[in-house]
Amino acid sequence: MTSPRKLLTLESLSAAVTDIRVPLLGSLSVRAAEVQRELQEGAVKPFEELAACHLGDPHATGQRPCTFLRQVAALCSYPALLDSDVFPEDAKNKAKAIMRTLDGGSVGSYNPGYTSQTLPRKIARFIERRDGAPCDPRNVIVSGGATEAIVSVLALVVNEEEPLKTGIMVSAPRCPLYPDVIAMCGAVVVEYELDEERGWSLNADNIRRSLSAARRRCQPKVLCVINPGDPTGRVESREGIEEVIRLAAEVNLLLFADEVYQEDVFGAGAAFHSFKKVLCEMGPPYSEQIQLVSVNSISKGVFGECGLRGGYVEFVNIDPSVFEKLYVLKSFNLPNVLGSLALEVLVDPPQPGDPSYGTFIQERQTVLSNLAEKARLTEEILNRAPGIRCNPAQGAIYSFPRIEIPDKAMKLAEARGMEPDTFFCHQLLEDTGIVLAAGSSFGQAEGTHHIRVTLLPPVEKLTNILKKIVEFHGSFMRKYS
Amino acid sequence: MTSPRKLLTLESLSAAVTDIRVPLLGSLSVRAAEVQRELQEGAVKPFEELAACHLGDPHATGQRPCTFLRQVAALCSYPALLDSDVFPEDAKNKAKAIMRTLDGGSVGSYNPGYTSQTLPRKIARFIERRDGAPCDPRNVIVSGGATEAIVSVLALVVNEEEPLKTGIMVSAPRCPLYPDVIAMCGAVVVEYELDEERGWSLNADNIRRSLSAARRRCQPKVLCVINPGDPTGRVESREGIEEVIRLAAEVNLLLFADEVYQEDVFGAGAAFHSFKKVLCEMGPPYSEQIQLVSVNSISKGVFGECGLRGGYVEFVNIDPSVFEKLYVLKSFNLPNVLGSLALEVLVDPPQPGDPSYGTFIQERQTVLSNLAEKARLTEEILNRAPGIRCNPAQGAIYSFPRIEIPDKAMKLAEARGMEPDTFFCHQLLEDTGIVLAAGSSFGQAEGTHHIRVTLLPPVEKLTNILKKIVEFHGSFMRKYS
Repeated sequence: MTSPRKLLTLESLSAAVTDIRVPLLGSLSVRAAEVQRELQEGAVKPFEELAACHLGDPHATGQRPCTFLRQVAALCSYPALLDSDVFPEDAKNKAKAIMRTLDGGSVGSYNPGYTSQTLPRKIARFIERRDGAPCDPRNVIVSGGATEAIVSVLALVVNEEEPLKTGIMVSAPRCPLYPDVIAMCGAVVVEYELDEERGWSLNADNIRRSLSAARRRCQPKVLCVINPGDPTGRVESREGIEEVIRLAAEVNLLLFADEVYQEDVFGAGAAFHSFKKVLCEMGPPYSEQIQLVSVNSISKGVFGECGLRGGYVEFVNIDPSVFEKLYVLKSFNLPNVLGSLALEVLVDPPQPGDPSYGTFIQERQTVLSNLAEKARLTEEILNRAPGIRCNPAQGAIYSFPRIEIPDKAMKLAEARGMEPDTFFCHQLLEDTGIVLAAGSSFGQAEGTHHIRVTLLPPVEKLTNILKKIVEFHGSFMRKYS
Repeated sequence: MTSPRKLLTLESLSAAVTDIRVPLLGSLSVRAAEVQRELQEGAVKPFEELAACHLGDPHATGQRPCTFLRQVAALCSYPALLDSDVFPEDAKNKAKAIMRTLDGGSVGSYNPGYTSQTLPRKIARFIERRDGAPCDPRNVIVSGGATEAIVSVLALVVNEEEPLKTGIMVSAPRCPLYPDVIAMCGAVVVEYELDEERGWSLNADNIRRSLSAARRRCQPKVLCVINPGDPTGRVESREGIEEVIRLAAEVNLLLFADEVYQEDVFGAGAAFHSFKKVLCEMGPPYSEQIQLVSVNSISKGVFGECGLRGGYVEFVNIDPSVFEKLYVLKSFNLPNVLGSLALEVLVDPPQPGDPSYGTFIQERQTVLSNLAEKARLTEEILNRAPGIRCNPAQGAIYSFPRIEIPDKAMKLAEARGMEPDTFFCHQLLEDTGIVLAAGSSFGQAEGTHHIRVTLLPPVEKLTNILKKIVEFHGSFMRKYS
């Protein structure tokens, strides 16, 4: 045997794969992991532990799971617990009701009937209650989390056989997974800027302007909106959503609404309006013609169950023949049943009068009032610093303050091949152990620099982190001015 | 607003999506679902309920979950149970040990450290114990089940920028998902026949012959082998595997070993030999040069946890730079944490002396001895029928008997645009309520016809099913001869 050419090597990969960048949030999460290891190996640093403030991972940063959801999951995992007296009756009844609809009564069966029919019916009723508008369960598809849903839906829209590449419009800033997913699907990112001066609101003129410019290089088909906003913490107004729907009709775009933070709304006067609700309320021709896709997830909100992987997609004004193909595609990646039943708890939680209702409501209130308090603290503490300007967060789990970067730091960053805010975050990490995400990972207006601060750490811890950021930014300004 | 062109329609989809066929097992599973609905709606049929004998879904057909696994899952779902006395100490200790390695101690965190480092280390030790050969944890990637792993690895091998399409060799017969996955990845299916006369064994001459023919139309890169075999029930001999490894070296193919049924081995004298083990034992140059990918899963074997979605891939002789890309790709579809901890139980089950060891071993023995008994019954009962010939099943959970189809039935099937064995299965379903999968879904030698019978229903039920199949085949032969 002569030494053969190996078949699977870095060189053998397709360009689409080779071009994929390092993980979300890039070099910072890589360096954070290294610092963690160095600390474990006894390295002496100016800090004793990392303060992770870069990930939207609620349980990892101290949010407690929803008791009722976990009780139902435990009961369905080990049904012998139905005989024990440690669970409230409604958790037992919920578990029994779910297990009756499972093949062989087991979460260990594939359960295509549960995930593609029973559960979509419950999700549809949740959407109807939320929106006061009808929802056909056949338009709802359960997925293993929102990310996977985003990938599969965007991939469906892209048709690489067409002469012009598909353009997919995403805001700047936005959750960093979008550009990677869009590139992976063979489409083109078309950025539109949110309006930082108006609290990160949607701005139809910005969308229109970037659409016109994009039509020269691609065929824009989809307008993605994240509401409540990651990383902005913006909760879009009803009027703002209506304006975007009108625009989508005018320029013929499919609307993709990433509404995974819909439970996380805490700003005074802010309320979540789903695109579906506003669309239905606008009536014909909009309600009949606009193609809308909306995603939701168990990973955020009061549940924060990122690790269980549960989510769903609702399709509006899209032909069932398209879902048929999506179902077949998704048969290669079936939703897991425990994540799916967690989704059932999200859409059908304890009701007034149920034994678990009090605990459930209290847990929800705790999550939301903590987020509100932390958003307030973030705005207050960061805006004290001369070089930091912070819009109020009304929802989601982040704040996206703008930071000033002095000239010498800009030059140093450039010399290291880094974005200026990435350079700032690296320096902050080495000096304080605080891990933030740099604004450049999310997209931002030319010449501006930001950091994303997650509102997840406990109040006291976050307060310390914020004070240290302010202090560090001050010394950073002095050092590099 | 004039009526705009809708952006997402059946016509807008790419050919790769449009060409995807109806779900696995095709028209039979669709019709079975219809019949189920008709029965529920009170339709009068020659039977009162369906007898599902077409799916590899152990819990759906009565296999009991592994007690220890489910106890650990329940404890990790609801850690307050650690204070209760319904669980054995080793289940509590296992749950505590797992939770110590989870971010925030919660299965609800994303837990990239657990799924990409802690768990791969445990899987690597399992592989080392199994094979008596080293396994580097960095070569192990956790996935949300084997199917998803198969899709992501095959997609990685395909490079659509190359002038000739990538060819992927799969056996006939084989699990029906392969052709669909291969088409979805933009590659070409290259079939090689298993040797039905020699108990469905691998046959190097067949592989070599179909490879030569394929080189004209594509660039064959991968040779997939399913061992133990779906749908054949074959457990490949050590010699057979060694012969295939020599062949792969000679013709330069990457070996893809689908070893998800490795726990399901029950035939007298049969033993599971992993490709990795045989490769390592063969030594250089094979052990250093052959690129091998192997997948395993919690969905089969003594666990049968299809619904939890847990699996892993081991890469051999593949450069870590390739995994880096795969990790990024997989960050869009993270493994769920409860499925991952089930995988931990698979690779690190109760040991002698542990309180749960007795139950665990007894549950495993029950699964395996039942399968052995049902394989024996299947062979015995089906071979009594003049027009049915059944190889012994030694492993996996299926038997794949050959059936004679009389001329008139062949013509009728053709008139209906159906494969002859699909026609047989449809008639059987309408007459008896028994749902089988037709051999044509799996690939088979020209002019032969088969059915796949799963060995999962309980002994008594399966015995009745088998007797009815024999009886029905007799009357089918008489009716259409």
